[in-house]
Amino acid sequence: MAQIAGVNTVQLQQLIESVSQGTVITNPATLDNYRWDRANDPSAGTPLAVVRAASAHDVQATLRFANVHDIPVVPRGAGSGLSGGSSAVEGGIVLSLENMREIDVDPLTRTAVVQPGALNTEVKAAAAEHGLWYPPDPSSFEFCSIGGNIATNAGGLCCVKYGVTADYVLGLRVVLADGKEITLGGPRLKDVAGLNLTQLFVGSEGTLGVITEVTLRLVPAQRPPTTLVATFATLDDATSSVLAIASTMRPSMLEFMDRPTINAVEDATGMGLDREAAAMLIVQSDEPAEYAAHEIAEIDALCQRHNASEVFATSDPEEAEAIIVARRMAIPAVERHGTLLLEDVGVPLPRLGDLVRGIEGIAKQQNVTIAVIAHAGDGNTHPLLVFDPTDDEQKQRAHDAYGDVMDLAVQLGGTITGEHGVGRLKRPWLVDSIGDDALELNYQVKKAFDPKNILNPGAIYDPAVLQEK
Amino acid sequence: MAQIAGVNTVQLQQLIESVSQGTVITNPATLDNYRWDRANDPSAGTPLAVVRAASAHDVQATLRFANVHDIPVVPRGAGSGLSGGSSAVEGGIVLSLENMREIDVDPLTRTAVVQPGALNTEVKAAAAEHGLWYPPDPSSFEFCSIGGNIATNAGGLCCVKYGVTADYVLGLRVVLADGKEITLGGPRLKDVAGLNLTQLFVGSEGTLGVITEVTLRLVPAQRPPTTLVATFATLDDATSSVLAIASTMRPSMLEFMDRPTINAVEDATGMGLDREAAAMLIVQSDEPAEYAAHEIAEIDALCQRHNASEVFATSDPEEAEAIIVARRMAIPAVERHGTLLLEDVGVPLPRLGDLVRGIEGIAKQQNVTIAVIAHAGDGNTHPLLVFDPTDDEQKQRAHDAYGDVMDLAVQLGGTITGEHGVGRLKRPWLVDSIGDDALELNYQVKKAFDPKNILNPGAIYDPAVLQEK
Repeated sequence: MAQIAGVNTVQLQQLIESVSQGTVITNPATLDNYRWDRANDPSAGTPLAVVRAASAHDVQATLRFANVHDIPVVPRGAGSGLSGGSSAVEGGIVLSLENMREIDVDPLTRTAVVQPGALNTEVKAAAAEHGLWYPPDPSSFEFCSIGGNIATNAGGLCCVKYGVTADYVLGLRVVLADGKEITLGGPRLKDVAGLNLTQLFVGSEGTLGVITEVTLRLVPAQRPPTTLVATFATLDDATSSVLAIASTMRPSMLEFMDRPTINAVEDATGMGLDREAAAMLIVQSDEPAEYAAHEIAEIDALCQRHNASEVFATSDPEEAEAIIVARRMAIPAVERHGTLLLEDVGVPLPRLGDLVRGIEGIAKQQNVTIAVIAHAGDGNTHPLLVFDPTDDEQKQRAHDAYGDVMDLAVQLGGTITGEHGVGRLKRPWLVDSIGDDALELNYQVKKAFDPKNILNPGAIYDPAVLQEK
Repeated sequence: MAQIAGVNTVQLQQLIESVSQGTVITNPATLDNYRWDRANDPSAGTPLAVVRAASAHDVQATLRFANVHDIPVVPRGAGSGLSGGSSAVEGGIVLSLENMREIDVDPLTRTAVVQPGALNTEVKAAAAEHGLWYPPDPSSFEFCSIGGNIATNAGGLCCVKYGVTADYVLGLRVVLADGKEITLGGPRLKDVAGLNLTQLFVGSEGTLGVITEVTLRLVPAQRPPTTLVATFATLDDATSSVLAIASTMRPSMLEFMDRPTINAVEDATGMGLDREAAAMLIVQSDEPAEYAAHEIAEIDALCQRHNASEVFATSDPEEAEAIIVARRMAIPAVERHGTLLLEDVGVPLPRLGDLVRGIEGIAKQQNVTIAVIAHAGDGNTHPLLVFDPTDDEQKQRAHDAYGDVMDLAVQLGGTITGEHGVGRLKRPWLVDSIGDDALELNYQVKKAFDPKNILNPGAIYDPAVLQEK
């Protein structure tokens, strides 16, 4: 009997018959589209099959099948992950949630019940129809899924005031490794009955279960913001301004771009940015108009006090949009200069200056371009490492720098990942970030939930180490 | 050799020698003070000893000793719990954190590193010295500890806008069942390295480990609020107003009192409340002054539209304080009429009316007084069951009603506990609240963290059931 990676064709037929018609894909050309997320993990395997689940029932059937046959299952949303959390495992099943995307907004409870494949932007739009707002806004919000956002506890630009994905997750339905679907939490703003397993699943990167439904908290629509942009001749002045702003007020956005980023954006747009500036800050206040004007005036004064070379503020939506475009263009603009390795290291705010200067040092030492953008207000930076993919030696230096940046963040009391997740790419650094004892507890929880390690094996944890536990 | 509940005096001497001098208490009169929290659990046992830890080292030594000798350890903060989470276990150790109360505020990162015994009010005061604010405000904030707040994920009045304790916990140091102290999270606003074990400990009621230090997020000081009070001739008008307000704006307080509560407060204060009103709402907005006036005017109009019999709004701090006093007096005022059983059931907001009316029905059916106050804006109610402790038959009816109220909340899609915890008193209803499957996962996590069940045995989980797992 024909064998595909440990499962014979008769067995595979069982899977096909147990899920909705047309959801199992084994055609090699299509499988190839499901091997990588945006991290382009070079060690990604080729899956045995992709199941594009149409319902929670399909997810259950897939996990029951995988559990019986000990087959790895890699859950996948929109494939926009940046740490290799959805790299396919050789001979495993990729369980895609992309077709489960219903959204049901309840304006009375200000909640939305959402399937995992719905895009972040679709949830925002559905909320907006009722005058409501789903705040978390990863830069990829137009093409990332809510399921993936929950799996990585995704952040974004407004988190400095409005918190991260976890702060909006009230309840989940989750399919466990054995195929059982359970309900955790729900549309209740306060609930302390039993352990908070809902929050344990948030950020668990598909290693504990597969999310089939989420109940999200919505808030009233955001007020139109007032926007300020400031440029600085030195990095220190910029990061000192960030600290002065963030420790005394609550802007709704506090973003940072360094000189390489400013220049890449200017190359791409010719919008007239100051190529000589060491750094640029973009700040917003969404307080009621008069108070926002007051807050922005204070921020203006703070930036001036920290030697800003230029400060410009506006409450005109079109002028503001032109400024925000600069920030939004940053990643694609830098990407024109080569292939990117995206970091998301974070530090306690007073160490932001040390981190940014240290990254500059690493770029020099490894002789690679590193452009830094940052959700500066929460100390969360995105060093973008640029390399020529055809130059193996340069590629190696970029990968070395990738590790150096994480080492630096840990040394400064920070984290290796603020909002992208550990995935497979950052796994070797996890122990340095959280320590042996916390990692040991992680293993114990993982073993309790998924004793056979069939759920996203290789993500977060080394399968060989788990096996020994 | 003399034996005290399975441990002989030589062994107890080992414990005494392993912790700071004078921290172990075995004197029966003093032990008696550590048998109960505010739930006055009739099944509380008599402990072998109380350890009043002076340091994390004492906590570690106590757990090492308990682990070797299989002795139950009940962690205890200020003893203000309302669900029997700190009832002493017969022959066990009560591990009191009341003397570990250091507070260290860092205004730059807007965080505070706090020991578990510090009172909530002390944390608020320390933050205020730097112009900062620690929002969570359980009604007991003047005499409850931060450790207990974290153990129960305590809520309060401002949570309707500012979230619960969990939203302010960035990091923890925790001593595990075997005496190992670990660090989880820290002063980073975004961190997704590994599972979110920090949040798993929040609300775990001392069943997974003992908190020895917490890193709390602080926010800028609250603006002075504008206050509105409205009375209604019918319960339906009051709960409809709550729904109308909460689904369209974000007041910083939205409290409810029913007729029995209003009358108890009027009995106690003679402040001139309307004894005929079916319910009273107290609402605050802490937006910038002009906008708050606008928001309060909208709330005023909403209440009028829902047939409020009287509405009064003020931005005068003294007038506001007089109104808030009515709310703050509610529990002590009702308590003058007998012994209390305090509930904290919650429902999705559209079911608030059904819950309050249903509780009225239960009070009639069981022939007991139930006064209802509520953090109405998050659907979290506090039915106060009043009984004469010398009347066994009445006491029994009150206990029956206590269960009926939880059954009703579950039936309405709610929770048996919004902010007090399951403890020992609510344990029999946990399975109905979260379901068999979620409870099973709870058991698995508990077993992974505390295989011998020495950590607060009897709280949340039935020890006999855990034993079989």
